[in-house]
Amino acid sequence: MAGRSGGTATTTATKDAKKTIDMFLALLSERAEVSGRRLAVDALGTYSRLQGEALEHFLDLLAGTFAPDERRIGGAIDAYRAQPDDATLAELQMAVESPRLELFRRLNVAPMATGALIDLRRKVRDTLKEHPDRSGIDRDLAHLFRSWFNRGFLVLRQIDWHSPAAVLEKLIAYEAVHQIRDWHDLRRRLQEDRRCYAFFHPALPDEPLIFVEVALTRGMTGRVQPLLDADAPVGDVRQANAAIFYSITNCQAGLHGISFGNSLIKQVVEDVGRDLPGIRIFASLSPMPGFCRWLKSESTSSQLSPGLRQYLQALEAPDAAVAAIPSGLKPEVLNLGARYLLFAKDQRRPVDSVARFHLANGARAERLNWMADASDQGLRQSLGLMVNYRYIVADLERNHEAFVRDGRIAASRQLQMIAATAARRPVATDDRI
Amino acid sequence: MAGRSGGTATTTATKDAKKTIDMFLALLSERAEVSGRRLAVDALGTYSRLQGEALEHFLDLLAGTFAPDERRIGGAIDAYRAQPDDATLAELQMAVESPRLELFRRLNVAPMATGALIDLRRKVRDTLKEHPDRSGIDRDLAHLFRSWFNRGFLVLRQIDWHSPAAVLEKLIAYEAVHQIRDWHDLRRRLQEDRRCYAFFHPALPDEPLIFVEVALTRGMTGRVQPLLDADAPVGDVRQANAAIFYSITNCQAGLHGISFGNSLIKQVVEDVGRDLPGIRIFASLSPMPGFCRWLKSESTSSQLSPGLRQYLQALEAPDAAVAAIPSGLKPEVLNLGARYLLFAKDQRRPVDSVARFHLANGARAERLNWMADASDQGLRQSLGLMVNYRYIVADLERNHEAFVRDGRIAASRQLQMIAATAARRPVATDDRI
Amino acid sequence: MAGRSGGTATTTATKDAKKTIDMFLALLSERAEVSGRRLAVDALGTYSRLQGEALEHFLDLLAGTFAPDERRIGGAIDAYRAQPDDATLAELQMAVESPRLELFRRLNVAPMATGALIDLRRKVRDTLKEHPDRSGIDRDLAHLFRSWFNRGFLVLRQIDWHSPAAVLEKLIAYEAVHQIRDWHDLRRRLQEDRRCYAFFHPALPDEPLIFVEVALTRGMTGRVQPLLDADAPVGDVRQANAAIFYSITNCQAGLHGISFGNSLIKQVVEDVGRDLPGIRIFASLSPMPGFCRWLKSESTSSQLSPGLRQYLQALEAPDAAVAAIPSGLKPEVLNLGARYLLFAKDQRRPVDSVARFHLANGARAERLNWMADASDQGLRQSLGLMVNYRYIVADLERNHEAFVRDGRIAASRQLQMIAATAARRPVATDDRI
Amino acid sequence: MAGRSGGTATTTATKDAKKTIDMFLALLSERAEVSGRRLAVDALGTYSRLQGEALEHFLDLLAGTFAPDERRIGGAIDAYRAQPDDATLAELQMAVESPRLELFRRLNVAPMATGALIDLRRKVRDTLKEHPDRSGIDRDLAHLFRSWFNRGFLVLRQIDWHSPAAVLEKLIAYEAVHQIRDWHDLRRRLQEDRRCYAFFHPALPDEPLIFVEVALTRGMTGRVQPLLDADAPVGDVRQANAAIFYSITNCQAGLHGISFGNSLIKQVVEDVGRDLPGIRIFASLSPMPGFCRWLKSESTSSQLSPGLRQYLQALEAPDAAVAAIPSGLKPEVLNLGARYLLFAKDQRRPVDSVARFHLANGARAERLNWMADASDQGLRQSLGLMVNYRYIVADLERNHEAFVRDGRIAASRQLQMIAATAARRPVATDDRI
Repeated sequence: MAGRSGGTATTTATKDAKKTIDMFLALLSERAEVSGRRLAVDALGTYSRLQGEALEHFLDLLAGTFAPDERRIGGAIDAYRAQPDDATLAELQMAVESPRLELFRRLNVAPMATGALIDLRRKVRDTLKEHPDRSGIDRDLAHLFRSWFNRGFLVLRQIDWHSPAAVLEKLIAYEAVHQIRDWHDLRRRLQEDRRCYAFFHPALPDEPLIFVEVALTRGMTGRVQPLLDADAPVGDVRQANAAIFYSITNCQAGLHGISFGNSLIKQVVEDVGRDLPGIRIFASLSPMPGFCRWLKSESTSSQLSPGLRQYLQALEAPDAAVAAIPSGLKPEVLNLGARYLLFAKDQRRPVDSVARFHLANGARAERLNWMADASDQGLRQSLGLMVNYRYIVADLERNHEAFVRDGRIAASRQLQMIAATAARRPVATDDRI
Repeated sequence: MAGRSGGTATTTATKDAKKTIDMFLALLSERAEVSGRRLAVDALGTYSRLQGEALEHFLDLLAGTFAPDERRIGGAIDAYRAQPDDATLAELQMAVESPRLELFRRLNVAPMATGALIDLRRKVRDTLKEHPDRSGIDRDLAHLFRSWFNRGFLVLRQIDWHSPAAVLEKLIAYEAVHQIRDWHDLRRRLQEDRRCYAFFHPALPDEPLIFVEVALTRGMTGRVQPLLDADAPVGDVRQANAAIFYSITNCQAGLHGISFGNSLIKQVVEDVGRDLPGIRIFASLSPMPGFCRWLKSESTSSQLSPGLRQYLQALEAPDAAVAAIPSGLKPEVLNLGARYLLFAKDQRRPVDSVARFHLANGARAERLNWMADASDQGLRQSLGLMVNYRYIVADLERNHEAFVRDGRIAASRQLQMIAATAARRPVATDDRI
Repeated sequence: MAGRSGGTATTTATKDAKKTIDMFLALLSERAEVSGRRLAVDALGTYSRLQGEALEHFLDLLAGTFAPDERRIGGAIDAYRAQPDDATLAELQMAVESPRLELFRRLNVAPMATGALIDLRRKVRDTLKEHPDRSGIDRDLAHLFRSWFNRGFLVLRQIDWHSPAAVLEKLIAYEAVHQIRDWHDLRRRLQEDRRCYAFFHPALPDEPLIFVEVALTRGMTGRVQPLLDADAPVGDVRQANAAIFYSITNCQAGLHGISFGNSLIKQVVEDVGRDLPGIRIFASLSPMPGFCRWLKSESTSSQLSPGLRQYLQALEAPDAAVAAIPSGLKPEVLNLGARYLLFAKDQRRPVDSVARFHLANGARAERLNWMADASDQGLRQSLGLMVNYRYIVADLERNHEAFVRDGRIAASRQLQMIAATAARRPVATDDRI
Repeated sequence: MAGRSGGTATTTATKDAKKTIDMFLALLSERAEVSGRRLAVDALGTYSRLQGEALEHFLDLLAGTFAPDERRIGGAIDAYRAQPDDATLAELQMAVESPRLELFRRLNVAPMATGALIDLRRKVRDTLKEHPDRSGIDRDLAHLFRSWFNRGFLVLRQIDWHSPAAVLEKLIAYEAVHQIRDWHDLRRRLQEDRRCYAFFHPALPDEPLIFVEVALTRGMTGRVQPLLDADAPVGDVRQANAAIFYSITNCQAGLHGISFGNSLIKQVVEDVGRDLPGIRIFASLSPMPGFCRWLKSESTSSQLSPGLRQYLQALEAPDAAVAAIPSGLKPEVLNLGARYLLFAKDQRRPVDSVARFHLANGARAERLNWMADASDQGLRQSLGLMVNYRYIVADLERNHEAFVRDGRIAASRQLQMIAATAARRPVATDDRI
């Protein structure tokens, strides 16, 4: 009996998936020219009700259907080989184009479709490992999104307490670096000594694509807990001379690979600099997510002091309370931190993902901060260290080129000295300097 | 001397064109990742100053540069031939893609770039006959625009006397059917018994892409001059039961082939119907631009009455005042008009371009109007006849399909009868019914 | 010593108060003509820092200063008596006008001043009992506000989840009828089957003056708890035929006596009726705040059944849990409720303040609902009863006039019958029918 | 017959006027509490259709009706005389208040009423000379407007080519200093090297109350024709260091006596200074409307040179072409101009109305410009002279006080010297310095 009911469920799922694909196919038919909007609305509605097994079936069908016509490709290749000119190239381009592109373009006519397509890509990517055959869907959507989400179409908006609640609740939902606990917490992050900026696409007015949280402070802040304290007094903006980017969040997993972070920071540096001429320092306050992992790696761990090794071991215990890091370890930890930032590389690129992001943007590693993130997570991840990456507009391009071309890491003299004055011999890296 | 100075001018033009292309190339380089916005702004600025010979040079260079890498294409073809799967197809797709697409995407990052690219395509298309080798630019831009100007991204806006002057002056500039003479004339077309709607793209907030002018009238209007009279009294909207589309203008030559007209009319029918439930009739009041040309064509002209032939001849005199059409010709002219609309075809499609547009939208030819456009141009073009194409929502899809599939023209019974009751034998068409 | 330090504090408070008054006086001087804005900003800033004793001093000074010039009044009276004409009347009008009016008008030039003046009146009114001499301030501000907050200047805005958080948090803060517990609760009250409308003044864009919460339901809802359940499923608006006003809150104590409620409800009835033609029933779901008090009053209490008297007594215990009301009491309670609504009057006006509001608006008492508010407060206040007052547009004016002129209460036939079928003899009222 | 028909017309007019007044009276009745909005709409509609004789009748009735109750005033006076305290004063204030105030407040509830009331005052003022008994209406409306149009409620808006046409056409209609000929002319005045600012009231979103036109120039412009040339090339704003107020227009005759000009200029100085830090000079370019009149006055004319006297005489001929002013007259004219500005007074205040406005604002007379307005009107009015009044923020208050208190005129050293170096003896003024 169970088998049969399972079978029935499967049959229903298969039918629902098939029906949706048929509606997608209709969108590519002739009727769609005059009734495209209605067909798109219906198709999207049907798709959006798919769940579980039916959704899986559907994704498989979507991956299998809408492939370019192989015979047409064959013919176009022959013609191009025979005479490679503008016309044969044009035909070849058209022949290889995935019909899914046109399908997605037509679906996009329906209200809310852009968001639904971003969500579709997220679902596909979530299952890509088990279903590598779905990579064509991923690729086609990425291709479209690169066009649709062109930086020229994005709108930078400042988000503050006058923004719609429908937008603000997204910040709470998406914030990925330093969790926003509730509306009270959120409100503090939008007060006068703070700024929040996001990129939006006109078709998704309530959906930030990426946002950055900025604190306006006197001096380059090196500790994150005061910035996260929802009850901290509001600072006097007229005294501020630094804008600290303390959190950057990509909101849409479905837009993976279409990068906005670099543009966002540069634009915010420009806007804040114009609005608040007193702000001279632009810097991040960033985690070092890979530091402890690197310390525990074979080649490094052998060089650690017994005290540090012991402390690291204590951190391993999953549920145990995290003890404060002994201040005696400070010189060693700072030295290791500096070496990690400057030398720890994987194929000429920094091991640390956050470092890679800011350095590729043209920022320079400016300062290491002891006990900068004193939370449990901060200690477990990086012994409490955080980095200020500084954005000096005049240097960004040069830093970026040196980084991309030669793998050279821009760093303050101070950081370089800390890394250099190591008592012990340098830790192993894949890159000897 | 003239030769040398010409030579110098040429050299300068060549240099300017070359310099611009170099800036475009830089946009595809590594530096562009971090300085893309600045490079795009500079490149676009330099390009926008090109004129005359320099511009021509530039277009030639643009057509010649940025072609896909032939060797990469060759390799991709070989790999695909060897094993046609997802991976080899993906590589083939990338190999054939014109690098110009990425170039244009990166240029688009600059402010106002979208408008500049539309203008670039207009320039290319204006010279396509003499420079067929520029068709690649045209094709690449069209490809991008189809993606960027997806209906899902367009915004329908009503335009009225509260719209920005920066938008309103565009109506005056673009109106292609019934010229708007001045602001006084424009104002009349935006008063309470009128409506104007346009599609906009968020990146071009002041640029209508297409707009339609609508008159709200009591009964289906059959004469256009009263609608165009800037001093006509404003009608009582509460009495109106018909929305007459009396002018539809595509504004951007650079968006040729990306069609918005069908969507616009359908959306306006929907919006007006919701706002003004008293409006029951939706119809165009349209010219018949090809009627007189068709009358003068060989096969038709032989069948005309002497009186009509004489009047047509009188119209030929280019500068002469146009005499009113004798009312005695009315039955003959209406009959010919009906036959023109229903039977005059070219390869199964109506000869008349306006008819093709409305019929393909699913409208039906409803009524022929005698002395509907009594202007000189109206008489010279169509002996003063105009057509109401009626939009009946429930029939649009069926009419459209029958038209596209079988070339069947939806027409009112009255029109069919006028066409049928011809005293003389039917005029020649390529399609006998 | 304490005395002296107290004396010093007093001296400081006196000084601060005096200084503020001096700044207010400067605003009425000649300099204010060109520097009025700056003077107003400074004066308001100084005032807003007054607290405690200094504020009290200041209010006393404000009440004492700025009185009209008695000699000028005397002269104007003499002139008017001698010859009562347009000119002498005009002078008398000017002579009696409180200079505080001009003072407040000039203060209002500063940003945020309107809000500060509303707040000033609230403070004055809070202390009016102990300081009756401050009534002049109250009267002058009320006079101004009646002019400034003219209904013609108010803007009705719908509030939803797209409204600025700065506005939404005010709803949480102000809601006076059914407390909004948190943002989650608020969100539920703004979903698709709900509406919220408020009046705003352009000078106070974030400050609702009054707001009403509306539930769109199928049938006239008689129970409030389902409406207040933050996790209740969202209803289908297309099925709704009733708009239930379940909460109306006046936000600004400083605008006491300037009434907006009647206008608000009438405008919302109009707007909802236009937006949602399916809504046919407009009614409140209202508390009966004075019911239990009335039951316990001498003349009534003697007529109650022993069971009811016992239950009422049990409610008196302040901290005890409130027991459910025995269902056997239902007929008696409903009868008493109906009699309370229809007959319990004080000087020809209903005893119940909520009844007074809706009846004066022209609504009619439609239905009494048993166990409508099952909360502790609902039981203690009105034995769980609530009333639907129904707004029938065509009857509003007639009902209002009959109510105001003759004290006649519009009520449904059903309610009248419940009141009439009393087993016992009618309870005492000041009005025999 | 004519008499009778005239009588009939009169009767109709009387009836219409009477009917309108009755509707106004109804607005003050009890019914108005619940139906106030509808009654106001109806009353305003009926009023707005009054014309000619009916309107005159109506204004007479409006002036006669709505007077305060004389008996109530008498009683209030008696009570106040008997015991002048807060309560009797309050009653006296209420007793003398014109019921028209409440009437107008209630009318204002109708849409568009504020504009209609402004227009009503304009009509009343236009006929005040013939109908002095209407001054009560004027006074009551002025009283209300002073409250409603408080500076704190006005919104400064920049007007540019993106403003609604409905606003822009008002500029064309209202501009009172240098006529705007058409939309082409208007457009030039809104281009990048120009600014236009206006005060708006929220209840009149399309109606500027006052506007100022500003040219951004390099150096303090002394000639107006280049600024008025619709085809002049657009200047480079980045080079500009001066903001020249070349036209200020009060738009609403019905707001006579409620002054906005001073606030507007000060706010614009502030806003432009903040937006464009390169602008250091703020000055008007102003006419001297009374100069020639003053030259022709008895005491002055006797002192003029024969050449100047002759030129002045030539200007008198009304239709004759205006000849250019001989350059030989320049020294004399400049000297006279300076003396006119600094010494020509009427009861200690400058004879020149424009001078009075700017000097009272705290500006100083900075420079006299020869051939500054070379138009016919410019020559006839002031021999082509114009003045720059300069606004130096730090000096405004001091200048204003000295001007108001002592009649002292702030002027540049240069102007003072020109006035002082007169060859002839000083012209007569009412004020010897």
